[in-house]
Amino acid sequence: KMLRRVLCTVLFMGALPSLAEESQGHISVVLLGATGDLAKKYLWQGLFQLYMDQVSSGHSFTFHGAALTALEPGQRLMFDVLKKLACPPDESPDRCAVLKDQFLKLSQYHQLKTAENYTVLNREIETLLRQEGLKEAGRIFYFSVPPFAYTEIARHINSSCRPPPGAWLRVVLEKPFGHDLESAQQLAAELTSFFREEEMYRVDHYLGKQAVAHILPFRDHNRQFLDPIWNRHHVERVEIVLKETVDAKGRTSFYEQYGVIRDVLQNHLTEALMFLIMELPANVSRAEEVLQGKLQAFQSLRGLEKNSAVLGQYQAYASQVQEELQKAQDYMSTTPTFAGVLIHSDNLRWEGVPFLLTSGKALDERVGYVRVLFKNRAYCTQSETLRDAGHSQCKAKQIIFYIGHGALNAPAVLVSRNLFKPVMPEGSWREAVGQSDLRVFGQPLSDYYVYSPVKEREAYSVLISNIYHGRKDFFITTENLLASWAFWTPLLGSISLQPPRLYPGGVENQHLLDFEMVSGEVAFTVAEPVELLNPNRLMPNDYRTIQSKFRQSPLVSAWSEDLISHLASDIEKAARRTVAHAGQFHLALSGGSSPVVLFQRLARHHYAFPWRHTHIWLVDERCVPLTDTESNFFSLHNHLLQSVRVPYFNVHPMPVHLNQRLCVEEDRGTELYAKEITALVANASFDLVLLGVGTDGHTASLFPRSENGLEGAQAVVLTESPVKPHQRMSLSLSLINKARQVFVLVLGKGKHDITTLLSRVGHEPRKWPISGVRPSSGQLVWYVDYEALLG
Amino acid sequence: KMLRRVLCTVLFMGALPSLAEESQGHISVVLLGATGDLAKKYLWQGLFQLYMDQVSSGHSFTFHGAALTALEPGQRLMFDVLKKLACPPDESPDRCAVLKDQFLKLSQYHQLKTAENYTVLNREIETLLRQEGLKEAGRIFYFSVPPFAYTEIARHINSSCRPPPGAWLRVVLEKPFGHDLESAQQLAAELTSFFREEEMYRVDHYLGKQAVAHILPFRDHNRQFLDPIWNRHHVERVEIVLKETVDAKGRTSFYEQYGVIRDVLQNHLTEALMFLIMELPANVSRAEEVLQGKLQAFQSLRGLEKNSAVLGQYQAYASQVQEELQKAQDYMSTTPTFAGVLIHSDNLRWEGVPFLLTSGKALDERVGYVRVLFKNRAYCTQSETLRDAGHSQCKAKQIIFYIGHGALNAPAVLVSRNLFKPVMPEGSWREAVGQSDLRVFGQPLSDYYVYSPVKEREAYSVLISNIYHGRKDFFITTENLLASWAFWTPLLGSISLQPPRLYPGGVENQHLLDFEMVSGEVAFTVAEPVELLNPNRLMPNDYRTIQSKFRQSPLVSAWSEDLISHLASDIEKAARRTVAHAGQFHLALSGGSSPVVLFQRLARHHYAFPWRHTHIWLVDERCVPLTDTESNFFSLHNHLLQSVRVPYFNVHPMPVHLNQRLCVEEDRGTELYAKEITALVANASFDLVLLGVGTDGHTASLFPRSENGLEGAQAVVLTESPVKPHQRMSLSLSLINKARQVFVLVLGKGKHDITTLLSRVGHEPRKWPISGVRPSSGQLVWYVDYEALLG
Repeated sequence: KMLRRVLCTVLFMGALPSLAEESQGHISVVLLGATGDLAKKYLWQGLFQLYMDQVSSGHSFTFHGAALTALEPGQRLMFDVLKKLACPPDESPDRCAVLKDQFLKLSQYHQLKTAENYTVLNREIETLLRQEGLKEAGRIFYFSVPPFAYTEIARHINSSCRPPPGAWLRVVLEKPFGHDLESAQQLAAELTSFFREEEMYRVDHYLGKQAVAHILPFRDHNRQFLDPIWNRHHVERVEIVLKETVDAKGRTSFYEQYGVIRDVLQNHLTEALMFLIMELPANVSRAEEVLQGKLQAFQSLRGLEKNSAVLGQYQAYASQVQEELQKAQDYMSTTPTFAGVLIHSDNLRWEGVPFLLTSGKALDERVGYVRVLFKNRAYCTQSETLRDAGHSQCKAKQIIFYIGHGALNAPAVLVSRNLFKPVMPEGSWREAVGQSDLRVFGQPLSDYYVYSPVKEREAYSVLISNIYHGRKDFFITTENLLASWAFWTPLLGSISLQPPRLYPGGVENQHLLDFEMVSGEVAFTVAEPVELLNPNRLMPNDYRTIQSKFRQSPLVSAWSEDLISHLASDIEKAARRTVAHAGQFHLALSGGSSPVVLFQRLARHHYAFPWRHTHIWLVDERCVPLTDTESNFFSLHNHLLQSVRVPYFNVHPMPVHLNQRLCVEEDRGTELYAKEITALVANASFDLVLLGVGTDGHTASLFPRSENGLEGAQAVVLTESPVKPHQRMSLSLSLINKARQVFVLVLGKGKHDITTLLSRVGHEPRKWPISGVRPSSGQLVWYVDYEALLG
Repeated sequence: KMLRRVLCTVLFMGALPSLAEESQGHISVVLLGATGDLAKKYLWQGLFQLYMDQVSSGHSFTFHGAALTALEPGQRLMFDVLKKLACPPDESPDRCAVLKDQFLKLSQYHQLKTAENYTVLNREIETLLRQEGLKEAGRIFYFSVPPFAYTEIARHINSSCRPPPGAWLRVVLEKPFGHDLESAQQLAAELTSFFREEEMYRVDHYLGKQAVAHILPFRDHNRQFLDPIWNRHHVERVEIVLKETVDAKGRTSFYEQYGVIRDVLQNHLTEALMFLIMELPANVSRAEEVLQGKLQAFQSLRGLEKNSAVLGQYQAYASQVQEELQKAQDYMSTTPTFAGVLIHSDNLRWEGVPFLLTSGKALDERVGYVRVLFKNRAYCTQSETLRDAGHSQCKAKQIIFYIGHGALNAPAVLVSRNLFKPVMPEGSWREAVGQSDLRVFGQPLSDYYVYSPVKEREAYSVLISNIYHGRKDFFITTENLLASWAFWTPLLGSISLQPPRLYPGGVENQHLLDFEMVSGEVAFTVAEPVELLNPNRLMPNDYRTIQSKFRQSPLVSAWSEDLISHLASDIEKAARRTVAHAGQFHLALSGGSSPVVLFQRLARHHYAFPWRHTHIWLVDERCVPLTDTESNFFSLHNHLLQSVRVPYFNVHPMPVHLNQRLCVEEDRGTELYAKEITALVANASFDLVLLGVGTDGHTASLFPRSENGLEGAQAVVLTESPVKPHQRMSLSLSLINKARQVFVLVLGKGKHDITTLLSRVGHEPRKWPISGVRPSSGQLVWYVDYEALLG
């Protein structure tokens, strides 16, 4: 009855078409956690805005606040909030007052605690609709509750509150959506058992920020200008930044579990990043295409390593944690409250362009922005003093999606005037006349075209409108979420024990949090002035590389990262020396997992390596096609060859796949490879052979008691491995021992036993093939990391 | 006797050790063109400086001015110059006065015109030495004469004026050293018939400019700082600039033949460039190592194309030429007086770094500098307004070798303070205290460490000292000279008829000469406001690409450059479409010269090409090893594959080289290739086949009346070419006609006749194999340039 009354009032106002003809059906909105902070601050206001916007849409609405609180006090709490709902400045006060009145009448409170409560709610909705003779369009359940409550609520909704066939269900979920890939998968799996993918709307409120939401439309409207420049040839760098002045005080119980990366980078900043780097779909308003584009963009991201991030923690954080979480005085938290992360996309459009994601608490200002800085491609012939300031092509060129706060204190889109005058949708963005003396991003505001939204809208209001419109591209799909966690989880793992740099907070931070990119990694620019945290800890890089002897040959030992870097440098030195002297360098590489790190290091850090004059040979190969992921060559190709410039002719995979079959003796692959070696390598003596060692003492694909390759003069042999794939091709000991240099790389705790054993045994190749590696006139060097050496 | 008297005076001054014990021998300096402009302005002063510096070296000197003028007037002219010699500010006036007096006494004038004159000069030197009882150390002949006189003088010196065995000869040559590669080679060959390489000192006075001469020592002294950053990962761009305010008035007879590129870029700016990009030798004071390094650096330069340069001419130039050279009123000169050139080095250190060489007359200021601008690798977390200006890592980082004039009006070396404090040789460079409010290169001078020479020295004085010391690395060797001409000549050829942009001169130029880099090319930033020169000329790019029909199939026609660009875009479109739809793109490419331009275009301009999903096949191949320069694959590799990222597995060269022999039928290469195609390409139907046409109507390696490939179902065939190498492997017509798209590219006047013929004939593959290309269900498109189409 209440509903009919309200509908009549609306009809009286003339804003609604005839119900009978035009009714689009009824929508029930259930806000779970209706008296919580988020609901108070944003959600009710967003629902009220939805009502104001859609009152004439033909849909009718009811709003159901719900919480664990009993009916009476809950009702009181909720209506206290509702009464304070504000009228937006662009709405006529009269209309707003009437609508607010209606909105209050359409709203009611429910205690939702037991299964029974949900059944009752469902019955009430059904009854109401029957009474009013309305068709049900759909139901929205907004979960503004802690994540531990999700499963329980989801189960109840699924079992008791689904709308009848023909009407839709939309459940809206608030982060956190897990803590890492595994927990996110688990949570997603649970939710999937209750809801279909299209029913779930995971909120990242950044997608509702007007400047962020406009990134894709901007790229779409300005294709003519951006097509030629939206790529690595023109973009110098991208900064995605959310700086806060507040700290985590009062929220440490949440923050201590999450930290800045999970709180801000994994979700908000990553989503903005995706909008920038994804290939622009033909139709940006088709959610499906946008989501596909985002997933592909995730695939293009280069994996993060420990040194992809710099981490900080404001000094007061530790004591706040101690106090709020009742920890001991000496409790040390490694939770970062500041992070700067360098991200690379490996697709051809963005290869090499640094994407810097930065966020932190207790910084000097509150501001959020996405800044695309273009390269200066111009040379201005006229001297600086004479250049007409307004139009010089030598001034910085940038596009900034200004999310809010900071100097502008409002959302905005800024485009350098020497770039282009952007096309902006007239109804929603207008050119702003700013204070021209204000400087933003190194230039006066007058250097930019500046646009601001015609109506400034809260992110939640934008999102609630998009839930209503079923615009799934404004939300995080399960695939999207898991792709993001899959990207971030390895970094989170590798830094979990790393002590962040302490910073005083606010303007006192000075240059302490400035960081620099070096060879695809980041590091703080200013050396730590005093070791504030745990001054006595001994970090791996405090050790120096140890050089001594192992099995009568030189031994290089260090922590694995340093060892790999040392080995890569030694290989480069050998290559440069050999090329300078002989014109070419013949390098034979082993398969397996240890060399992968080496390959990556060579690919990313050794720009001066004479690849053009290097021949790449394989030490051993599995009898699978070269394009099989099990193939040693495939791994070598992916981690090294793909990134450097070895001429095609200088690459020599083993011929394991001949005549459409694998390692068949009659196909004479071993002979073919031996002939190729003889034809190209002087005396069949490789300049450098890189070997590994298995836990059973095997090296190359020469296994203990192998019939082939341990003795005799045959250069290349077929062997059998005890593990799958069994069939292998390998260089023989006799060929390996002809090499001018042999480097053996041994990494990890798992190799400690065999390393210890090898330090004692003599020359017994049939038992331990590696012990047969004794270059007849060349040099043997062992590269063994501390874990393998010392256990 | 004169000499002895002078020597006694010197001895009396106590500056010389005992002659008898320590004499290093006598040096005769002969200055040819002793009364010319260069001699008056710089050379005599340089010789006087040499005398002042080396009077105590143990060498004795005589100075012989020579010219065509008769003895008496010549003597008068020359001594008028000598009397005006200045004392340097760092020399005590007393000592200088005495030395100047001695210098005048040691100098005499000779008329050198006939062969006899040279014989007499030689006899006089010999007599003098005999009389004084001096051993001869060597003779310096300084050619300050026009180049047409070189050969004659060189012949006389060689035949009459060589010093006796044991003493050295050094001939000093002034530019121009030729006009292009051919003339330079010719001049070099002539000189080589008279002098040995080590006897010739070719002057580029830029090598004597203190800031330029210090580039290599600077790199050497600062290896610790520069080693990690002197590469493409850190250097953003390099600018090498010589701007002049003067114009060519009074010198147009010279200038009209040379222009700014020959006058400044080919020599001065190129030499500075070499010092920057060459690999630093272990010992920078060893001339041989430095010269080797320079030659290697020349080899690394990417060839210049027409669009590697922007050209300008100041407006008054044409009338100056008309007046001074008595040309007709409508005479149009295309000689550039301004040039901006973009240079790339293709070694791994510098790949992708733009080197911008700029010079011009009638510009707004006079200044010369070499500027290395580093990338900003830092992110500064603190807001701009709070950053401590002095040390921010976010400020520009640069190293500038300031040659002279301009705001600083002196040679200097500038290093940004946020980069490093350079090591400078204390004796010769000192830290300068500048006006800190002066701004240079976008920053206040106080942002730099600034060093200036302890003694400012004229370039010629530096060079004359280095001639004396035999430092050949301060001069241009024949190899160096020819390498530079080999680099510049193609550009000079391709721009010789290109009208330069006219500019008013001075500050009026405004932005007219600003230029931008786009895809490895340069173009003026501001569109030409009015076509000032020859407004009626119709340039190739004024035509639009014509689309119509040829042999019943679509025809695309344009000038060749536009056609190639169109074709490359069409191939990329096909590739993207096919990959989006089928996941991979099978592209079969022809050999020959026409596709090379296409390959280069694809490599340099199509960053979004889905190479990772493209398979590359060969349409035909010559029966030579793949690494042979005749091989189609080799050319494809050099011009395309080397620069893009096609996975190794996706590259399919034809198996012409099996079992160490070429195209032997029993080795079944054709079957092997056909099998590979069948295994990977669905229905053996390539997504795109690119063909060419020979003047005899052949396509692929299918020649008229070929026994194989024109008929029948065999997919891959061996054929015979009428030209060498005769043996070929080729896809057959039947396989080509299975393709989904076939593009035929026809370029150049030479193809006009066959094009005309083909437009008339029907399907006669035995006569004209190309006429047999009729894809059974695919599309055929002709890309024929205007020259081939219209003759």
